[in-house]
Amino acid sequence: MGTVSARHPFGIHFHSHSPIRRFDSSIFQFPSHVQLSRITLYSSSQGLVHRVCARPDIDDFYWEKDPTPILDTIDSPLCLKNLSLRELKQLAAEIRLDLYSVLSGTQISPNPSMAATELTVAMHHVFHAPVDKILWDVGDQTYAHKMLTGRRFLLRTIRQKNGLSGFTSRFESEYDSFGAGHGCNSISAGLGMAVARDIKGRRERIVAVISNWTTMSGQVYEAMGNAGYLDSNMVVILNDSRHSLLPKIYEGSKTSVNALSSTLSRLQSSKSFRRFREAAKGVTKRIGRGMHELAAKVDEYARGMMGPLGSTLFEELGLYYIGPVDGHNIEDLISVLQEVASLDSMGPVLVHVITDENQVEEHNKKSCTTDKQQDEYVSSDLFYKAGQPQTYGDCFVESLVAEAEKDKDIVVVHAGITSEPSLELFREKFPDRIFNMGVAEQHAVTFASGLSCGGLKPFCIVPSSFLQRAYDQVVHDVDQQKIPVRFVITSAGLVGSDGPVQCGAFDITFMSCLPNMIVMAPSDEVELVNMVATATRINDRPVCFRYPRGALVNKGHTIDDGVPIEIGKGRVIVEDARFCKPLDIKLLRQLCKHHSFLVTVEEGSIGGFGSHVAQFIALDGLLDRRIKWRPIVLPDSYIEHASPNQQLDKAGLTGHHIAATALSLLGRTREALSFMCF
Amino acid sequence: MGTVSARHPFGIHFHSHSPIRRFDSSIFQFPSHVQLSRITLYSSSQGLVHRVCARPDIDDFYWEKDPTPILDTIDSPLCLKNLSLRELKQLAAEIRLDLYSVLSGTQISPNPSMAATELTVAMHHVFHAPVDKILWDVGDQTYAHKMLTGRRFLLRTIRQKNGLSGFTSRFESEYDSFGAGHGCNSISAGLGMAVARDIKGRRERIVAVISNWTTMSGQVYEAMGNAGYLDSNMVVILNDSRHSLLPKIYEGSKTSVNALSSTLSRLQSSKSFRRFREAAKGVTKRIGRGMHELAAKVDEYARGMMGPLGSTLFEELGLYYIGPVDGHNIEDLISVLQEVASLDSMGPVLVHVITDENQVEEHNKKSCTTDKQQDEYVSSDLFYKAGQPQTYGDCFVESLVAEAEKDKDIVVVHAGITSEPSLELFREKFPDRIFNMGVAEQHAVTFASGLSCGGLKPFCIVPSSFLQRAYDQVVHDVDQQKIPVRFVITSAGLVGSDGPVQCGAFDITFMSCLPNMIVMAPSDEVELVNMVATATRINDRPVCFRYPRGALVNKGHTIDDGVPIEIGKGRVIVEDARFCKPLDIKLLRQLCKHHSFLVTVEEGSIGGFGSHVAQFIALDGLLDRRIKWRPIVLPDSYIEHASPNQQLDKAGLTGHHIAATALSLLGRTREALSFMCF
Repeated sequence: MGTVSARHPFGIHFHSHSPIRRFDSSIFQFPSHVQLSRITLYSSSQGLVHRVCARPDIDDFYWEKDPTPILDTIDSPLCLKNLSLRELKQLAAEIRLDLYSVLSGTQISPNPSMAATELTVAMHHVFHAPVDKILWDVGDQTYAHKMLTGRRFLLRTIRQKNGLSGFTSRFESEYDSFGAGHGCNSISAGLGMAVARDIKGRRERIVAVISNWTTMSGQVYEAMGNAGYLDSNMVVILNDSRHSLLPKIYEGSKTSVNALSSTLSRLQSSKSFRRFREAAKGVTKRIGRGMHELAAKVDEYARGMMGPLGSTLFEELGLYYIGPVDGHNIEDLISVLQEVASLDSMGPVLVHVITDENQVEEHNKKSCTTDKQQDEYVSSDLFYKAGQPQTYGDCFVESLVAEAEKDKDIVVVHAGITSEPSLELFREKFPDRIFNMGVAEQHAVTFASGLSCGGLKPFCIVPSSFLQRAYDQVVHDVDQQKIPVRFVITSAGLVGSDGPVQCGAFDITFMSCLPNMIVMAPSDEVELVNMVATATRINDRPVCFRYPRGALVNKGHTIDDGVPIEIGKGRVIVEDARFCKPLDIKLLRQLCKHHSFLVTVEEGSIGGFGSHVAQFIALDGLLDRRIKWRPIVLPDSYIEHASPNQQLDKAGLTGHHIAATALSLLGRTREALSFMCF
Repeated sequence: MGTVSARHPFGIHFHSHSPIRRFDSSIFQFPSHVQLSRITLYSSSQGLVHRVCARPDIDDFYWEKDPTPILDTIDSPLCLKNLSLRELKQLAAEIRLDLYSVLSGTQISPNPSMAATELTVAMHHVFHAPVDKILWDVGDQTYAHKMLTGRRFLLRTIRQKNGLSGFTSRFESEYDSFGAGHGCNSISAGLGMAVARDIKGRRERIVAVISNWTTMSGQVYEAMGNAGYLDSNMVVILNDSRHSLLPKIYEGSKTSVNALSSTLSRLQSSKSFRRFREAAKGVTKRIGRGMHELAAKVDEYARGMMGPLGSTLFEELGLYYIGPVDGHNIEDLISVLQEVASLDSMGPVLVHVITDENQVEEHNKKSCTTDKQQDEYVSSDLFYKAGQPQTYGDCFVESLVAEAEKDKDIVVVHAGITSEPSLELFREKFPDRIFNMGVAEQHAVTFASGLSCGGLKPFCIVPSSFLQRAYDQVVHDVDQQKIPVRFVITSAGLVGSDGPVQCGAFDITFMSCLPNMIVMAPSDEVELVNMVATATRINDRPVCFRYPRGALVNKGHTIDDGVPIEIGKGRVIVEDARFCKPLDIKLLRQLCKHHSFLVTVEEGSIGGFGSHVAQFIALDGLLDRRIKWRPIVLPDSYIEHASPNQQLDKAGLTGHHIAATALSLLGRTREALSFMCF
């Protein structure tokens, strides 16, 4: 399915004419039977790299051109311990070079990891992983961490079948203390580890990295408040490099999605924190004894007052705030981290580290690509380019814009760590009618419900796996109150290189069991457009529909106006799952009457469409001695990252699998087998 | 099923010997066909009280003894507009009297609503509901609000079949702008309404009340941060009356569950906020021109510095902080609310209101009950009393304590707005091995996962409907990483008087579709105990089991040690759903071989046990022409609050329903019908 045809591992391979595809990066395919000898270094440890068996061709490596003498000596974080400051700085530079070279030509941005390179080096220099636990909260900052923990030579396989995961994974390496993929979980998991350590009487250090991107997520606040209360020793590092994570498309008139993140960003322009802090001490002295009560207060706030806005927030949640620290100054980073590592009875500490994407950009400029090429690179991941509709996402947005032009009440709320790139079209047309909530999915859903109560028609767009984070809000704040919110579930089903972490396997199941919810799924782009029209017109209850990520639509035709579908009305095609709820009872009865076999197919888990069909026909008596039913669903296992076709094959959901099932149902076992060997 | 045999509506009816039952409050039953004339006052408005048709016997009312002359004149909030301050104070006192009298003898605590009485009166005096929108975030603070909005005479029917809901409900009254039940949603929904108002060009005011109890919940921070950013006008009222909500059992050595709530509570002892604020102005002036940059900073922090700790937190999230205000001083409340109501371009404002349970206690002392009786009353809801195991919850905790005595790694994490009262036994025995997370369910689940990574054996106890709030954490932080966390799902299935809001309908469905999860459900208390033993010994993957709220165990025997069950092994009883996952394939095949009919029964939604059974036997070919399958699940609708038996009847899940299904499957339709008429 991939159209990006780069076979050479270095150079500019982005084709600006090709459709924006986000999950097909099957560019480097290596023999899967060859084990890389390096990983045996850690094979004594539990679970290290044991599932990784792809291997790059070493001859192609960039450092054949740009030498990386220090990085070449690093087999594990242990090798960082004796490096001098100068060498550590050099190491960071080499990591950047390597990251840039390895990820060039792929659709994976090296920027988040490049911005966090000095921080990664400093952490692994000061702390003793894997005994000390380092937790991350988003995957794309961790590539330098992967390089330093025995996975450098596998980095080219990242997000490919049998290659490294794009996220941290406990199955992949013992240095990955916890899985990072949906964001926001590192403080919670780290606090659990810290408390377990205390109960068990051990002394390892726990370091949880969070990104500014995830400071808008509720779980981070729940975790910080609880950390402040439980008072276990742990270090939280706020890696504040918003530009590398916040898509530029949102940096128009409004630069951030919540007040705190804008507070954090203002900070980046300030330069005189230390001067402020000295000044604060002076104030405290001058106030004198006569106002000691007030003086104590001032003292208490001195750090916050002289530090950035935002620091007192962390202090009030119970974390001792230190910062801001220049995230590209290894010397400062090391001394701060050494200080907090040595504090034995300190409780939770938050170290605010500012990383600067400009520094990354400068590196990029120095490197062999031109600015223009770099621009193209950055844009590949995030920008929607005008033109013919290509993906289901494009079709959806175009038809939503068409509806929104006719109906002024249509507004968009979107949430999740990934966004639908084509939404930029809606933003351009209706900048005041679109609300980006980032990883605040819980708020996003209830907010959409409030918009609906206020008389608007919200389309709430959330990737399937992130909708899981707002499930209670869907139940309690929307479905139970029968409030018309239109859920658009993106990234439904398998998601290729994002593997199980962002796989949208469960949405049909967890949405279809809700009493008031209408559940639809289009089988082609025309149906998708009609479903937008249908959803717009459903004003008495919630509705949802799903579509896959990146999948190309069949035809290049222009989108006509959507035609509302009769609710619950099915359509006879090869695989029809237009309405999971309400079911098209009439159609089902008719099909059951005239057929002997019924195969239900869905790219979703058990408990969804097939289960609803089976329950209906069982209760209706149609399943008794009349018809043979075979459900085909996603298997009861997580499908690892690979190309979409490889994943479908693994999941048993290809056309061949469906045909084979049908043939074996007809007793034509031999033919069925031949289909599977095809 | 109820054993609390109070038929008289006033007096002390709590029997301290009776088991702690939380959902059977079928004390007042009134003819359901009689409509109360008062509600016709609002019948012109959409949806007001239209589903409420129970009616109390007016002769019994308490105010026959204690006159409530002002309250008697209040038909709607409009009637509050022209009352003098003195009359408003009197009205608040009358509401307290009435609340106390109506709820005496029930298991519903009037304290949260009594603590919020002056606030409720002030809000309805200043704002113009239902045009202005008042949103609450927990149900039990809203009874005064219900009294003032045309539902006074229905209050005795609260939480009973056909009676008032224990929560706010858009179906019940147009004055209930949004449903409050799971907490934490009022700012999100209110912000949505505020933005919709701005887009639509209307001018109504939006007032969202939050409680200190919910300040530990992540969604509140997501919402506040977004409110600060979007800057729409709205008023958030923090009703800080922690004592009325935080169960006293947690006020041992540690008085709060996170750092912020302890900050908020410290505040209550402080008396000189205004003096502080004046002093702050002085400081700002004294610093002088020479340090204007610093002076500006000090000014910025003046409110926060002089106000309570915690105030800058709200300011940094982008809300203008006002407070603290004495929540029992109607005069102060009205002037502050009038001020914020008149601010037209202010953005979001947070008014911090301190309500004091001591004041409530004083009222109670003055009232006709003795202290001892009041103590008993308070304890009924929250305390576990030693004795024979009575409920599934008691059985569970006793067996968990027995396991924990043998295994030092067992720890408890519990979360949700309601807790398992019998957990007090565990807390007494192992105070350092139990973690109460309150409504921070997301954090609780990931924290439990971290504990497990750290080598402990966490039991994560969450009511079914609140586990919905942590679904993504269950998927991403536990199941996908195959981390052994033992989920104990309480309040599974129907929950009586809590109605649909806390009904645990979906857990089997949303847990069983997870690939690594083992899903169990005990059919009696012996199996429950065995499942605790089983879960303790599962160390390679997550496991969950569920039990209903309050249901009494059959026998009064003492709990023996649990015997681990073979994973996936079923047991042939009338209704066997011991393992939903993995299914007992052998047993199923055997049953299918020797039977013609298969009825699956579960107190859960579609997509659960029945669907898993059907999918297996379909794929195994057992469903083809061999066996007739009939699934019995919770119906595809929300079951309103009623007694558990009434709810089961409504849901079609009684023994009669099951027998009738079986009989009709056998073709014995006449007998089946007679069963249903029984």
